[in-house]
Amino acid sequence: MTSSQAKRLVVVGAGPGGYDAALTGAAAGLAVTLVERGKLGGTCLNWGCIPTKHLLATTQAVAALADQAKQKLVAGEVRPDLAAIQAKKKKLLSATHSAMAKRLEAAGVRLVTGNLAGLEQNVAHVAAGGKTEDIPFDALILALGSRAAAFPGVKPDGKAVLGVAPVLDFTEAPESLIIIGGGAIGIEISEIYHRLGTKVTLVDAAPRLAPAEDPDVSKVVAQVMRRNGIDARAGVKVESLVTDEDGLARMTLAGGEVVTAAKALVAIGRFAPTAVPGLAELGATFANPSPNRAFIATDETLQTAPGIYAVGDCNGRVLLAHAASSQGTYAARHAAGLESGPYAPGPIPGCYYGAPEIMRVGAIAQPGDTVSEAPFVANPMAQAYADTAGFARVTWKDGKVAGLTAVGHGASAMGTLATAIVAQSWTRAQCEALVFPHPGLDETLRAALLGEMKTKD
Amino acid sequence: MTSSQAKRLVVVGAGPGGYDAALTGAAAGLAVTLVERGKLGGTCLNWGCIPTKHLLATTQAVAALADQAKQKLVAGEVRPDLAAIQAKKKKLLSATHSAMAKRLEAAGVRLVTGNLAGLEQNVAHVAAGGKTEDIPFDALILALGSRAAAFPGVKPDGKAVLGVAPVLDFTEAPESLIIIGGGAIGIEISEIYHRLGTKVTLVDAAPRLAPAEDPDVSKVVAQVMRRNGIDARAGVKVESLVTDEDGLARMTLAGGEVVTAAKALVAIGRFAPTAVPGLAELGATFANPSPNRAFIATDETLQTAPGIYAVGDCNGRVLLAHAASSQGTYAARHAAGLESGPYAPGPIPGCYYGAPEIMRVGAIAQPGDTVSEAPFVANPMAQAYADTAGFARVTWKDGKVAGLTAVGHGASAMGTLATAIVAQSWTRAQCEALVFPHPGLDETLRAALLGEMKTKD
Repeated sequence: MTSSQAKRLVVVGAGPGGYDAALTGAAAGLAVTLVERGKLGGTCLNWGCIPTKHLLATTQAVAALADQAKQKLVAGEVRPDLAAIQAKKKKLLSATHSAMAKRLEAAGVRLVTGNLAGLEQNVAHVAAGGKTEDIPFDALILALGSRAAAFPGVKPDGKAVLGVAPVLDFTEAPESLIIIGGGAIGIEISEIYHRLGTKVTLVDAAPRLAPAEDPDVSKVVAQVMRRNGIDARAGVKVESLVTDEDGLARMTLAGGEVVTAAKALVAIGRFAPTAVPGLAELGATFANPSPNRAFIATDETLQTAPGIYAVGDCNGRVLLAHAASSQGTYAARHAAGLESGPYAPGPIPGCYYGAPEIMRVGAIAQPGDTVSEAPFVANPMAQAYADTAGFARVTWKDGKVAGLTAVGHGASAMGTLATAIVAQSWTRAQCEALVFPHPGLDETLRAALLGEMKTKD
Repeated sequence: MTSSQAKRLVVVGAGPGGYDAALTGAAAGLAVTLVERGKLGGTCLNWGCIPTKHLLATTQAVAALADQAKQKLVAGEVRPDLAAIQAKKKKLLSATHSAMAKRLEAAGVRLVTGNLAGLEQNVAHVAAGGKTEDIPFDALILALGSRAAAFPGVKPDGKAVLGVAPVLDFTEAPESLIIIGGGAIGIEISEIYHRLGTKVTLVDAAPRLAPAEDPDVSKVVAQVMRRNGIDARAGVKVESLVTDEDGLARMTLAGGEVVTAAKALVAIGRFAPTAVPGLAELGATFANPSPNRAFIATDETLQTAPGIYAVGDCNGRVLLAHAASSQGTYAARHAAGLESGPYAPGPIPGCYYGAPEIMRVGAIAQPGDTVSEAPFVANPMAQAYADTAGFARVTWKDGKVAGLTAVGHGASAMGTLATAIVAQSWTRAQCEALVFPHPGLDETLRAALLGEMKTKD
């Protein structure tokens, strides 16, 4: 089959979902066009997973020193040069952009820089440089990503009140920072700037921090953040957040309390850019169809209309890069006829890399569930790192592991192991049979897997 | 069954193997006596795994700062207080000793502090405080551990030439340190004292460092150690190592070169304390029966004679704490009649926690084997940690994973995951199906698992 005869796949969005969809489609023999309006790599590479991990990793010595200094075992000072750290980040991202572009080219993917202006049956209209190109397709994969949500009175204004992207690009740490949103983004960024010497205030309207996690995980999050000196508060309603006349971020809470800071970050959720002209007319449907908060609804094969797939953040299933990659790979294979069954990826791990670290896969324990658990305080590695808060917990269903979570030192590094165990629904006997290396932080997970089973209150 | 009627199990040695054997035996209803001449926890807890990890973890900020400082992203200085670090170590070890003793007591294990002076049929003679107690047994588990090897001219003298225990107890870092032995102990201790400002010279007679590992792993070990400023040399024969008249350690190499240092560590291998009077007469046999280098030979049920088991280091199978635990647990269950098949623990991981970190499970790739691999330099986490040397490698047999190794940043934390994959002999399709969290150092293992298969030269 020559390229002109090949089935034509158009992928919109070059984040993890779209990029992997394009490469997978090309490997499967499709004629692939990838449309991206901005930078390759999407939110993950440019304003999400990678920049946050870069900032956490480059400043890790600050946290390691602080933990040991509390015990008076180590003294000294560590001074990160944020401008240099950002310059290196730019260099690394730029190298990654080049490598991605080369790989697309080598795979025969046509890359079009432009904005999806509209859709018609089997044609995508892409606007670029004042012109519109009509790109025909047999199958379309929308990998549109997501945008930060806002609400009236709490909205980035480009002055002191900002979204994630500019906050991750600061070349000088602000003296103080307000963060609205106690999810993964808020928790990681609070740790980053805390390490850089910023006075951080974090608030969330939800009754607890990390509201998507096990409630006992949330307790450890609050405990560790406050112990580290972050003013972290849950159950706090924000009336307004604006830039005041002095250029400061000024947050007014429901009770009347006012907090000011040099800068503020709004990180209160994500929604999909669903306003694509023609998308609904092609049969696409939307979930939670409220203004600015909708996602693209998908069926069990990730299609929102015949031949039109939506993958990654924009379908609202799991807003994580590796979920997008997994979905993009499946959708391209499905479009190529290599998959026919429903999308069934197994469990998708979620990790937080700040302080504390969190890992969660599969079911979260509910009252009445059978659980077993172990604390990090008994782990000699956690003791040596002087960071012993937290625990690992197993949720059992019918004698098999249905969910694993851990919060504490190095918990994020347990994510893959935990995913394998949950994916295979290990029995207690399987957990006993695996020889864990000693010593290791994983041994807290082992202690939980082998711990006394009890019913969760 | 009352205790007086229960089968009597005597366990000699309270390291990981003996301790777990005693607890397992008690849980299985045996009347257990545990004999230990020194401290609970054996080499692992007192002079091995745990103290090295304590010293590595407490000094980690030094390494984290150094990595970022090379890139001029972070400045400052980190000053570990070795005396304070050792004081905390003592406190942690002491707390662990108490916790272990309490757990033994709660389990109904009788703990006898004394030395195994001799064996006769169904009786152990234990010397303690000038007296000898005769302890009858139906089954005996020898968990005798191992001792450091030496050879003529290269032997700790208690002055400047030392074994592991005193080197791990230094309260002041020596200005310079010679280490003979390029295995896990030598590599970890060289990194510990390098971080503490000591000038380290490490030599090994083997043609490469980490001689038990994949030869390409050894190359990375040499590269990283030398880059860090450690004078690490393989293929070097030591003629003699003595304390000279100035109290310095003086090492003379085969070519005539002389190296002096404030202190020296001899870490050139381990052997079992096999010289137990009466042991051979009971039918025990010995492997590699050369003076000072023998181990106790065991059959497929870990018995060296009927009813006499040898577990852990002293049987020479795998000199690692978690191997000892696994064997001790099996032997106690076998003695209690709960196991009848051969000891078959699945793969035993081996990890190095210094610089670089190493993880290895299962087969090591040989020329002609099918392998796939991936470098850490492409991993965004390794990039962010400014520590990108190394790689992960898979050895495939009949389309299934038979071995995994990795050397590089965070490699030791991959040990459990790798063990699960090797234990289950994953196919490529299984590797593809597992969703790894992004970003993560594990993704280098994933890239190796999904990498191009080729034949190893």
